[in-house]
Amino acid sequence: MISVAIMGHGVVGSGVAEIITTHKNKLFSSIGEEVYIKHILDLREFPDSPLADRFTKNFDDILNDVEVRVVAEVMGGINPAYDYTKKLLKAGKSVVTSNKELVAAKGAELLAIAKENNANFLFEASVGGGIPIIRPMNQCLVANNVKEVAGILNGTTNFILTKMIDEGMNFDTALKLAQDLGFAERNPEADVEGHDACRKICILASLAFGKHVYPDNVHTEGITKITLDDVKYASAYKSVIKLIGKVKILDDGKMDILVAPMLIPKKSQLANIDYEFNGIMVRGDCTGDVVFYGKGAGKLPTASAVVADIIDCCKHLKTRKYLFWADGTNDSILPYNESETAVYLRLSAESKDNAIAKAKEVFGDVTVIEPKEEIAQTVAVVTPVLKIQEIESKASALESSGINVLSKIRIGDL
Amino acid sequence: MISVAIMGHGVVGSGVAEIITTHKNKLFSSIGEEVYIKHILDLREFPDSPLADRFTKNFDDILNDVEVRVVAEVMGGINPAYDYTKKLLKAGKSVVTSNKELVAAKGAELLAIAKENNANFLFEASVGGGIPIIRPMNQCLVANNVKEVAGILNGTTNFILTKMIDEGMNFDTALKLAQDLGFAERNPEADVEGHDACRKICILASLAFGKHVYPDNVHTEGITKITLDDVKYASAYKSVIKLIGKVKILDDGKMDILVAPMLIPKKSQLANIDYEFNGIMVRGDCTGDVVFYGKGAGKLPTASAVVADIIDCCKHLKTRKYLFWADGTNDSILPYNESETAVYLRLSAESKDNAIAKAKEVFGDVTVIEPKEEIAQTVAVVTPVLKIQEIESKASALESSGINVLSKIRIGDL
Repeated sequence: MISVAIMGHGVVGSGVAEIITTHKNKLFSSIGEEVYIKHILDLREFPDSPLADRFTKNFDDILNDVEVRVVAEVMGGINPAYDYTKKLLKAGKSVVTSNKELVAAKGAELLAIAKENNANFLFEASVGGGIPIIRPMNQCLVANNVKEVAGILNGTTNFILTKMIDEGMNFDTALKLAQDLGFAERNPEADVEGHDACRKICILASLAFGKHVYPDNVHTEGITKITLDDVKYASAYKSVIKLIGKVKILDDGKMDILVAPMLIPKKSQLANIDYEFNGIMVRGDCTGDVVFYGKGAGKLPTASAVVADIIDCCKHLKTRKYLFWADGTNDSILPYNESETAVYLRLSAESKDNAIAKAKEVFGDVTVIEPKEEIAQTVAVVTPVLKIQEIESKASALESSGINVLSKIRIGDL
Repeated sequence: MISVAIMGHGVVGSGVAEIITTHKNKLFSSIGEEVYIKHILDLREFPDSPLADRFTKNFDDILNDVEVRVVAEVMGGINPAYDYTKKLLKAGKSVVTSNKELVAAKGAELLAIAKENNANFLFEASVGGGIPIIRPMNQCLVANNVKEVAGILNGTTNFILTKMIDEGMNFDTALKLAQDLGFAERNPEADVEGHDACRKICILASLAFGKHVYPDNVHTEGITKITLDDVKYASAYKSVIKLIGKVKILDDGKMDILVAPMLIPKKSQLANIDYEFNGIMVRGDCTGDVVFYGKGAGKLPTASAVVADIIDCCKHLKTRKYLFWADGTNDSILPYNESETAVYLRLSAESKDNAIAKAKEVFGDVTVIEPKEEIAQTVAVVTPVLKIQEIESKASALESSGINVLSKIRIGDL
C-alpha cells in the first residue's frame, strides 16, 4: 500500500480523489500495490464526503507523515502551493501538480530541488488537461530535436472564437455564454488576455529547449480586440482566427516565443480544433509535425492526468524520472520587436482604392482580401513578412497618411 | 557507454543508425551515458557506411555478446524476427521493434518472455510511426478505463482516399500515384486490403483491454471497392470515406473490433486527417476523446520512435517498464455478424422512386442522400442501426426484389 496526500479539494482535487477511489483496480494492476489517500488538505469542511475522516487543515500533517510518499498539489495559485511544494520535495516526497501558474513561475527551481532530494516533480496536467503532452514530449519525442511547438492552449478563448466564427456571435455574447456554461471564470482576464495560454507555452518551451522561460518575458496578446469583421475577412482569406501560443528555436539558439491571435489556414490541423478543445503541435526534426488533441480542462480529464502522474511516482519511488530544465534568462528570448511575421491589417477606408494604394505605398506588395460580402468603410490586406518593429513603424506611417489601422493580427504559418 | 545492436539495415534500420549518430548529444543528455552501436545485422554488404566495421551476418554475434543490452529489431516479417527476438529476451536483453506484424502475431508471448527474464519488449514504432501512442496509452491514460480506440492507421490508403475525395481521382490512378511517390508498395495488398491497419488495431486493442487480439480473428475490409460515386454520395451526407480500424469494449467485456471503410462526419477530428497522415482517437472514461496525429510511416519518424524506445530501455536496464497483456482467444471478440451499425447503401435504380420505396419496405426508416449533382441510375440511402446479419439478410431481400446493392459502407459514429 502506498500512501498519498491531496492538497486542495476543489474541482480538480475532488476529481483526483474520485478517480483514485473509482479506478482502484486499474491503479492496482498498474502499480502492483494499492494507492491509499491518507490526507486531504483543505480549509473547508466536507462532512458528507466518504473520505471525511482524511481531511486536515494542517499542512504539517502531510509534511511530517513519513508514510506519505507522493503528494498531489491541486490548490492552484503560487501561495502557499510554492512553499508547500518546496518543503515536500526537500523532505524527499514526490509532488505532482496541475498548477500551471506554479510550474511556469517556479518550474526550474522546483525541478532542481526535486533532483537534489531524489524525488520526482511531475506536471502532466498543467498543460492540455487530460491531453498527454509533457510525457510524450519528454519520452516519445526524445530522439528528436524539437524545432517548434504551437498550440491552442486555452479552451475558454477557443470556445469564444469558435462561436464568433461558426455563429457570428459577438465577443461579449460569446464570453457571457462561456461563463454561463462554466467554460469561463466570472473574472475572465487570465483567459481572454492570454495569460493562461502564456503560462502553458512557457512550460512547453522550457521542456522543449531546456531553459526556463518566464511568463513576464513573453509577449502576450489576448482576443478582446477581435471583431466579427476580422472573422469575416479571415474567412475570405481561407483562414480562421485562433489564439496561439507558439515557440520556435532559431539558428542562434534564441527562442521566438509569443501568445497572440493569429490567422490560421483552414486546412491546418490546428484550424479544426474548435470549442473548448485544445490542440498542440510539436514539430520535430525526425517526426515532422505531431498533433495532440483533446479536452484541455475539466474535472475528470485534468484529474486523470494528475492520477497518471501519481501512478508514475508510485512506480518510481526509488528512482527519478528524467524531467529537467535549467534556469533561464531573458537573454535566451528573441526581443519581440525582432520577430518576423506577415500581418493582416484591417484599415479604415472612405475610399477603398485610396486605402489599398496607401498600404501598397507603405508596405510594398500587400495581398488584398476580398470578402464574400462587402464590409462597409473598411478594407483588409496582408503584409509581406517583416520584423514587428517594421510592421509597427509602417503602420504608424499609414496612420499619418490618414488611414486608420483598426486591427493588426499575425498570419500564423502553421 | 551502453552497447546496442540493430537487426536490419533497411529504411527504418538505417534511420535508427542515423539518429543515434546525429543525435548523440541529445541521447547522452537523456540517458547520462553514450549509446554505442556495436553490431548491425544484415545479409547485405554496406562497405561505404561510416559504420561498415559494425556489420555482421551472424545473429550469434549479437546474442552471445554480453555487452549488448538493448537490440532494435527492424527487419520486419515474422521469420526470423520472432526467433531472434525470443532468443534475445531469453538472454535477458531488451528488444525494441517497429515490426507490427511480429507484435500483432506474437505480442502476448514475447511480453511474457520479457517479463520472465526481467527484460523489456517495447514497440512504440509499430503503430503510428513517429506518433506517440503506445506510451501515452500505457502511461498517460492509465487512470482511465478506455472505452474505444479508433483510427486512420494506414497512410497509403488514406493518401488514396484523400486523392479520390479532394481531386476526384479514381482508385487505380490514386494507387499508381501513391506507388510513384513511394507511399505504396509495388504489391499493395497488405495496405489496400486493410491487413496493415488490422495489425495495428490488434496491437492497440490488446494494449487497451489487456488481452491479445489476433489479426485472423478480426473482420477486415479494404478500400478496393470504393468508387467515386460513393465519395460523392458521402460528401452529400456531409461525410468523407476513411479506412478505420476500431475497437470498442462492450458491457459484457467482449470487444467489437473491425477494420473497414466508413463514412465519417466531416466535422469529426478523424475526417480532417488527410493524405499520408495517421490519426488515432482514444476514448477514455475520464479524458473523453483524445486524438494523436502525425506521419504514420517514413524513415525518420519511425526510426525516432525506435530510438525513443532504445533510450527508455537504456534508462531501465535494471527494472522493467510495465507493459503487458495476457494471451487472448476468439471468445473475447464479438462475432462480426452481431456487431451493430448503420450502413450506407448505393443501389441500382432504373426508377429512383421505386428503389427508395423498396429500400423503405425492407429496412424501414432509411435516410435518402441527395447529391448536389444527380448520379445516373443509382440512389443512395442510409439504413437504421442494425446487426450486420440483419443488414446482410435485408440487403439480400432487396436484391431479390430486383434492386442491386452496388456498395455497402458502414456509417462511423466517430
